[in-house]
Amino acid sequence: MDIRACLFDVFGTVVDWRTSASRDLAAFARQKGITGVDWLEFAVEWRKLYQPSMEEVRSGRRAFTILDVLHKESLDKLISRYGIKGLSEADIQHMNHAWHRLDPWPDAVAGLTRLKSKFIIAPCSNGNIALMVDMAKRAGLPWDCILGAETARAYKPMPEAYLASCRQLGLEPASVMMVAAHNHDLRAAKAQGLGTAFVARPTEHGPGQSTDLAPDPNCVDLPAGDFIDLAAKLGC
Amino acid sequence: MDIRACLFDVFGTVVDWRTSASRDLAAFARQKGITGVDWLEFAVEWRKLYQPSMEEVRSGRRAFTILDVLHKESLDKLISRYGIKGLSEADIQHMNHAWHRLDPWPDAVAGLTRLKSKFIIAPCSNGNIALMVDMAKRAGLPWDCILGAETARAYKPMPEAYLASCRQLGLEPASVMMVAAHNHDLRAAKAQGLGTAFVARPTEHGPGQSTDLAPDPNCVDLPAGDFIDLAAKLGC
Repeated sequence: MDIRACLFDVFGTVVDWRTSASRDLAAFARQKGITGVDWLEFAVEWRKLYQPSMEEVRSGRRAFTILDVLHKESLDKLISRYGIKGLSEADIQHMNHAWHRLDPWPDAVAGLTRLKSKFIIAPCSNGNIALMVDMAKRAGLPWDCILGAETARAYKPMPEAYLASCRQLGLEPASVMMVAAHNHDLRAAKAQGLGTAFVARPTEHGPGQSTDLAPDPNCVDLPAGDFIDLAAKLGC
Repeated sequence: MDIRACLFDVFGTVVDWRTSASRDLAAFARQKGITGVDWLEFAVEWRKLYQPSMEEVRSGRRAFTILDVLHKESLDKLISRYGIKGLSEADIQHMNHAWHRLDPWPDAVAGLTRLKSKFIIAPCSNGNIALMVDMAKRAGLPWDCILGAETARAYKPMPEAYLASCRQLGLEPASVMMVAAHNHDLRAAKAQGLGTAFVARPTEHGPGQSTDLAPDPNCVDLPAGDFIDLAAKLGC
């Protein structure tokens, strides 16, 4: 393989959304005097609304809508379901931007920095551009550019999300490697001709995680322990 | 003004297209044994076809088409006009990518690096994503993301080129500063509510340049000598 660029799934693969989002929400709740909410559960419930919200767009029932807007709609539902009162619109916007403030896994910045020396590196995430830029500035993720759902106007695992990202880099899919902690993402990328690397994130969903503990050999070209290991295996 | 992001014109403002493109073409011609062409003139003639090629898209006569394709069509015309023979399609593609290999003005990387410490920095150029990414990797331009014509699907000075870039950053135009060496670009940005900074590039068009030697006070909020001066004036 003559790989020229690495594209990355972000939520779960580059950043630890579960502990970061819950910690961010809990800190804001303390500041606002909101009590009685399990914010780890809240973050997980919020994430459960993620796939159904994108499915409205994937199915064609809804025009392409960026993830910040889908996240906000899901948050409004959850605030109502949990009976949380007294939040201003600015408060809710701040909570919605918890997804802009996620922390990277400990190996992510060092691994990406090494990979950047040899490859174009970019997210191919369902997160929108502003979300990815704000996250990268805060966390120090050294992306060369931001690709993914908003530039493709298609949510993964739709083929166009991967194909548009390759096209926008001026590269054939065979020259691009998709990196993810999720076999379903890599299966979809491989079906479009991209190379695939699996990085294990066995605590993305907490200590009892039962999914994506190992790469699926049917769709993974390169298994790696973390981003440092991936950089080493790709000769960086 | 509460500026959160700086958007940059690129050709002429960040990079010196005229001397870079001509030097790149001349080096390739030597390698290929092509003689009798004034490559500085060739580069200027190529650039003259730039605005007319985009005007086909702006006018709606043609669907949005990335600049690499427009550059290639203009190059094919010029190769024919100059009577240059014996080039393969790969040779012509290499020549077309001269625009991916432009050198920055001497102050650009240092100034952008300082500006990046306080602001989101991104190109808002008519160049496409691959062109901007390849140029940035080679020249060390530390963009946070790549915005502009391809993400907006509109060529400057169309309002959508500026407005989409602000929207994709999740910012109001009043929180975004457009930086350019061209008053016409800043006039269009200001009309959409962006802040504007003019950086003088008095030799973009060579020693006899007569245009854009000074900022137009009607559309420029902040005049600067170069990117270092701009960083200092913006408190970086």
